[in-house]
Amino acid sequence: MVRKANEAFYAAMENLDIKNMENVWLREPYITCAHPGWPLLEGWGPIMRSWERIFDQTFEMKILIDEIRVRVSGDIAWAVVTEHIESRHYEGISTGTVFTTNVFERCGTSWYLVHHHSSPAQRHVDGNADQLQ
Amino acid sequence: MVRKANEAFYAAMENLDIKNMENVWLREPYITCAHPGWPLLEGWGPIMRSWERIFDQTFEMKILIDEIRVRVSGDIAWAVVTEHIESRHYEGISTGTVFTTNVFERCGTSWYLVHHHSSPAQRHVDGNADQLQ
Repeated sequence: MVRKANEAFYAAMENLDIKNMENVWLREPYITCAHPGWPLLEGWGPIMRSWERIFDQTFEMKILIDEIRVRVSGDIAWAVVTEHIESRHYEGISTGTVFTTNVFERCGTSWYLVHHHSSPAQRHVDGNADQLQ
Repeated sequence: MVRKANEAFYAAMENLDIKNMENVWLREPYITCAHPGWPLLEGWGPIMRSWERIFDQTFEMKILIDEIRVRVSGDIAWAVVTEHIESRHYEGISTGTVFTTNVFERCGTSWYLVHHHSSPAQRHVDGNADQLQ
């Protein structure tokens, strides 16, 4: 089930658990990952090293899923997630809201992450933006 | 063909052409769009109004596709794109590099955009980041 795979991804992040993060992703050379402020990463090695580095530099991470939209079609699913992240590092505590696109691929009976794109969301919109909602 | 649909999307952007932009998207309530710095938009009306607003405020837009990765599985495809955008507005010229995730859905023999997520890419990485490439 896609939502379960998505939850496992966020659980691995919150637990700073590289083994569980590895279990979430499909081990294929075409997997891609765009963390906020990072260069685009492609392939198992670069992506797993990025999570190791993030987890190494983080004492604690709390993620509150604000909204989630999941679509499934055949063996592909994508989740559009708005999440609030609070994380504690050497430098202090950082908080922020991010948009994430997670693309999952079904392999056998399980769903695996094949693309993760996360970017800062604007928390306060300007006066005209409510016309767009 | 997915690449053709992706090209049509960027052509509509460059030409500031709302009719062609409408032709690119699937007219379904579940379509989603995250422009850099905007709230997440869902559904035909909010998404098309956002493009109208962007096009109204832009005199000219030039997009150079730097890298593109496309995966197709069944009736779903996703493109991960790095693009350089130069746009001319009332306020002057703005340039930037963005990462984009475009998810397409096949309907009949054509591919339509169902999700667009665009965010600023970091142009200059710190000294350690080359380990991650």
